[in-house]
Amino acid sequence: MPDTATLTFHDKLVAARDAARGLVTITTAQKNAALQAIADGVRGGIERIVPANELDLANGRDSGMSLGLQDRLKLDQPRLEALAQAVEQIIALTDPVGQTVRGSVLPNGLSINQVRVPFGVIGAIYEARPNVTIDIAALALKSGNAAVLRGGSAAQHTNGVLVEIIQDALESAGLPRASVQTIDEFGRDGAKQLMRARGFVDVLIPRGSASLISTVVNESTVPVIETGAGVVHIFIDESADEQMAVDIVRNAKVQRPSVCNAVETVLVHRAAADRLLPGVLQALRESDVTVHGDEGVIQLFADAVPASDADWASEYLSLDLSVKLVDSIDEAMAHIRNYTTGHTESIITNDLHNAERFLAEVDAAVVMVNASTRFTDGGEFGFGAEVGISTQKLHARGPMGLAELTSTKWVVRGSGQVRS
Amino acid sequence: MPDTATLTFHDKLVAARDAARGLVTITTAQKNAALQAIADGVRGGIERIVPANELDLANGRDSGMSLGLQDRLKLDQPRLEALAQAVEQIIALTDPVGQTVRGSVLPNGLSINQVRVPFGVIGAIYEARPNVTIDIAALALKSGNAAVLRGGSAAQHTNGVLVEIIQDALESAGLPRASVQTIDEFGRDGAKQLMRARGFVDVLIPRGSASLISTVVNESTVPVIETGAGVVHIFIDESADEQMAVDIVRNAKVQRPSVCNAVETVLVHRAAADRLLPGVLQALRESDVTVHGDEGVIQLFADAVPASDADWASEYLSLDLSVKLVDSIDEAMAHIRNYTTGHTESIITNDLHNAERFLAEVDAAVVMVNASTRFTDGGEFGFGAEVGISTQKLHARGPMGLAELTSTKWVVRGSGQVRS
Repeated sequence: MPDTATLTFHDKLVAARDAARGLVTITTAQKNAALQAIADGVRGGIERIVPANELDLANGRDSGMSLGLQDRLKLDQPRLEALAQAVEQIIALTDPVGQTVRGSVLPNGLSINQVRVPFGVIGAIYEARPNVTIDIAALALKSGNAAVLRGGSAAQHTNGVLVEIIQDALESAGLPRASVQTIDEFGRDGAKQLMRARGFVDVLIPRGSASLISTVVNESTVPVIETGAGVVHIFIDESADEQMAVDIVRNAKVQRPSVCNAVETVLVHRAAADRLLPGVLQALRESDVTVHGDEGVIQLFADAVPASDADWASEYLSLDLSVKLVDSIDEAMAHIRNYTTGHTESIITNDLHNAERFLAEVDAAVVMVNASTRFTDGGEFGFGAEVGISTQKLHARGPMGLAELTSTKWVVRGSGQVRS
Repeated sequence: MPDTATLTFHDKLVAARDAARGLVTITTAQKNAALQAIADGVRGGIERIVPANELDLANGRDSGMSLGLQDRLKLDQPRLEALAQAVEQIIALTDPVGQTVRGSVLPNGLSINQVRVPFGVIGAIYEARPNVTIDIAALALKSGNAAVLRGGSAAQHTNGVLVEIIQDALESAGLPRASVQTIDEFGRDGAKQLMRARGFVDVLIPRGSASLISTVVNESTVPVIETGAGVVHIFIDESADEQMAVDIVRNAKVQRPSVCNAVETVLVHRAAADRLLPGVLQALRESDVTVHGDEGVIQLFADAVPASDADWASEYLSLDLSVKLVDSIDEAMAHIRNYTTGHTESIITNDLHNAERFLAEVDAAVVMVNASTRFTDGGEFGFGAEVGISTQKLHARGPMGLAELTSTKWVVRGSGQVRS
């Protein structure tokens, strides 16, 4: 059993590429057996995982890690059980590899089929969230890809043990240990090298803060799938139903404020403000939401605090909401154009013309009419898995399923055809 | 009529983004009217185009431009007519914008549809080929995108007149002039800025030499669609039919040697070399092909010149071919793995097991059995247009049609749904 932890960075990339070659042709049954072995390994590995995790936590406390980050870093028995179950859910997903996207027989008799194939090697760069180690490894494996993981020095001991457990599981299922590797031991330099590993890494997925994602996008020569921030807007149009406005805004803000599809700014048509705003803001107050309002909002709702320019660009991820009055759908769409992160934008309206204009003209991964922005989610969309939500326009946009972790190739079958 | 030629670089990017916003919602009829005006303008503009082109050609001759480059730069009446006809062919293509890729109604009644939308602004960087100016502008417009073109200083006068003609045509069709702009006047610095224009340019397409493409890939922070080189292989397996081998290799090498889907290396199973090689190489000799062979090839075919290591990595784009004997399909696939550019790889065989192994294990945009590699082409695949052949794995792989110049967005229609 070669110990991949003693390999150089270049050795690991070569090993990943070699492992990826073997993963292209394995069966779904083999992948699922490996995934089950990983789930079992996570459950059975608690006595190795928790001490390593406590070491990382102790180091984090010593270096002043915030309580929020400490919480994200922590793994205990219930969290490990949830991780194992998440892997088992991935077993239940359809294997995208081998699916035919489109195909035809050309007039000359050539059969051409575009089929899904693994990317090869997926790189992931994330921060102090050891659950991502298991998550990305399992999703990569199910889609036939090898994974090279950079999980951050703050979770290095935890990730080291998790990757060992994954590699033992892979080996027990007859798959190469190098199918999943960590490069945490190479520190920041390893992350930089990973971003430049063209020819070894086929696609790089950053998961984490806006600054991490921005660094990867700017420095990577490997193609990146950007899973970005959500400054999500809801526009309450003049004709909106009051109860619908209350229900959707409350749901979009309060149900889970810490996630990217939660609403951050509500725009309200001035002609409907008297009728609609008191009810909406009252409902938010009852849910402990702090409203950051422009002047018009503050006149209607004395509890609002004044919004600054920074509020309109804020992804609060908390029980805060910026609220602004606008004179028209055009002003609403102009505001959205200035501040959107291209994630999800929703209109509440009963006006067909305005609904269609909003859907057609607003440029975002998901545009909605009369629905809570919280529905932008792979699980809700029926993809089964939560691979992330892409805010870029190339390759994948919006909620990503396993299919978005594959490329395609054209398979051409002939009987001696030549071109005239 | 604002003269966009006097704008700053930043002004032009802003103008492109604004123009792109208007193009999202125009009808196919409007696009086609603008395209017809462009075709008419190219035909009618010969007296403005040719003098500008002759100025570029004179400058090229003075600065020692190669005869091949001078030929690619030159525009005359037959070439302008061909360009106008190419634009008219794009009119005939199906507009991809608005097509529904997939959609469903969720259990809660939400209707979700993934529809094709324009990227927004497409950037193109290419070299001394003014036909690309018309080509990319027309393809971008048909797919609803604005275009920012950097065509190189060697074609600057030609491109300047072509873009004026395009802009006049756009204006006559009621579309913004800034839908198509050139940034040639900003020189190399403009190309560099274009590669860094995140937030203004949604996707960048380099067209040209391997070094140009490599520069764009390495320096661009804007997502790139790489249309790359083709070191294309054919493996003649032990069981190959001799006549089929002769026909396919000759077609793949000789029919049009200067293009990326022409074969550059033929690998021959050693056990079939005596039976197959003389006929194949004789046919190539009759077509004036120079064979660069390894030792075994030279023993069988005295006219071959010795192949060096560099030959195996060469995209000759000429009547040269490297030929090598291999002991097995595994050796053939290992050679391909070392030298492939991921474009097209073909096997000639009558062995079902080997055919399926080759199709499954070789990693390229297009893999073939018993067919000429020259079929890797958007026109041959039935896409109608020649947008280019992508050799990357993200977003598009292989021949690209108009659909590959679009992104998607999810359109969600509800009636007040909230998430529980």
